[in-house]
Amino acid sequence: MTDTVISSHKKEVVIGFERPFVVIGERINPTGRKLLAAEMAAGDFSRVVSDVEAQLAAGAHMLDVNAGIPLADEPAILAETVKLVQSLTDVPLSIDSSIVLALEAGLEVYQGKALVNSVTGEEDRLETVLPLVKKYNAAVVAISNDETGISQDPEVRFAIAKKIVNRAADYGIPACDVVVDPLVMPIGAVATAGRQVFELCHRLQKELKVNTTCGASNVSFGLPNRNGINAAFMSMAIASGMTSAITNPLHAEIMTAIMGSDVLMGHDQDCMRWIRKFREAPPAGADGEQRGRRESRRRRGAA
Amino acid sequence: MTDTVISSHKKEVVIGFERPFVVIGERINPTGRKLLAAEMAAGDFSRVVSDVEAQLAAGAHMLDVNAGIPLADEPAILAETVKLVQSLTDVPLSIDSSIVLALEAGLEVYQGKALVNSVTGEEDRLETVLPLVKKYNAAVVAISNDETGISQDPEVRFAIAKKIVNRAADYGIPACDVVVDPLVMPIGAVATAGRQVFELCHRLQKELKVNTTCGASNVSFGLPNRNGINAAFMSMAIASGMTSAITNPLHAEIMTAIMGSDVLMGHDQDCMRWIRKFREAPPAGADGEQRGRRESRRRRGAA
Repeated sequence: MTDTVISSHKKEVVIGFERPFVVIGERINPTGRKLLAAEMAAGDFSRVVSDVEAQLAAGAHMLDVNAGIPLADEPAILAETVKLVQSLTDVPLSIDSSIVLALEAGLEVYQGKALVNSVTGEEDRLETVLPLVKKYNAAVVAISNDETGISQDPEVRFAIAKKIVNRAADYGIPACDVVVDPLVMPIGAVATAGRQVFELCHRLQKELKVNTTCGASNVSFGLPNRNGINAAFMSMAIASGMTSAITNPLHAEIMTAIMGSDVLMGHDQDCMRWIRKFREAPPAGADGEQRGRRESRRRRGAA
Repeated sequence: MTDTVISSHKKEVVIGFERPFVVIGERINPTGRKLLAAEMAAGDFSRVVSDVEAQLAAGAHMLDVNAGIPLADEPAILAETVKLVQSLTDVPLSIDSSIVLALEAGLEVYQGKALVNSVTGEEDRLETVLPLVKKYNAAVVAISNDETGISQDPEVRFAIAKKIVNRAADYGIPACDVVVDPLVMPIGAVATAGRQVFELCHRLQKELKVNTTCGASNVSFGLPNRNGINAAFMSMAIASGMTSAITNPLHAEIMTAIMGSDVLMGHDQDCMRWIRKFREAPPAGADGEQRGRRESRRRRGAA
């Protein structure tokens, strides 16, 4: 039983083997979103506000906040974004940057116990990020690559995860505060990408006893119907023991797959979340939808 | 590596650990379909014909054929249905009945190596069905319950599966010709139903080295958005090692989940089946389906 507790000033989210899967909304991230990047650099955070609202409405349990804008003052913008998002919602945040100064600026203003995204197995990252994680009493995403890059060998990725967990312990960070990202490669390029992750999730839970997360949507890069691949991937990863993901909650297929997987893992007590969500408005599929509407009309008519 | 080869007079389908998942269409079954039952009893097989066509168009790799109609001459109707279906398609069949005489009547007229659906761990079933399976050189679905009913303990279900595999060996039927159904209970009634099956699939593959199948849709009995649960279940079962299922291929979400899971298991070489299917017509959901239909009209119009 490993519980990773992340919190804001008033709310806790727990990532754990016997808990509902935790969805960390990935949208507040200017990478690849030119308009958002330009707006944030100019101090216009209106799109961040709508991204917060939309992701919460779609069911995100936490939000990732990234302010990686080339040539901009990332530490200042990340801190401002963190403050803004915390003024809008009490869900806990993942503070996301590859720049250590930006992570620190974000942590400084953050109220609660944040998830730091991320550290890798590279020596310089370990030596700079882990002290910050300890100083601010945060949890951390540990990505299983190092100076040699991303190995295609799950053994190597497992060994790197283990190294990070051990190093974190040296800094006084317990294993329950290290959430390992086993690294998801595009299945269109690496045919074993799925099974590598599934095997790693099993081993990370059974042997290292740590929680796991991933940037899920990478798996479908370059393929048509990406949501179809991503949804199947989420269910398969959850069956293999994955406990959270940084993903886009606005894609209904992905959220349905995650909620359905929670039901099938026995993590949705009495299926109540599923029933609440789908009782009224049947989802997916023309046929189901129309039948649902007809039936609810009939029920209303009969009442 | 365990390959279960099922064939018709001219086509083989192989169920195996390193093969694409095999979908056995469940629709040709009068149970719970009053109209179909009445028609079949009266010698009208037009709906069987359309069920064959629709399931093949939806991507079924095999078809299950059942003629269980109360008070009707099931052996004669099953034999007639088998002959009819084999005249329409060369995909292999699963011959499905709880009546041994009906199984034999179906096997007698079947051309190829059928899948017999099913035997259980009950002594009288073992002693009557297995000799038939051997006589007709068929493969058989082995359902892991016995005289004591369906156990909630995966250990008991595993032990029953093992007993059936051993008994089959006594009759000269190799383990590769026994496809175990670990039994899927409704998740709404049994919160551990999903994990029981996932654990059993693992063990059946690793320890007994047999292929697996299931009546997948049972898992969502009583819940809203059944296709959402069924789709997640299929992906999770495939990640756990399940190699075939008797299910309804007409539900697009389920077929998308299965095809996506094949991609993620590395069983869809170069993702070609996925790309072929989704390159043109977007998938799942009303929108996708309607767009698909409009496109095919347009293509016909243009020809």
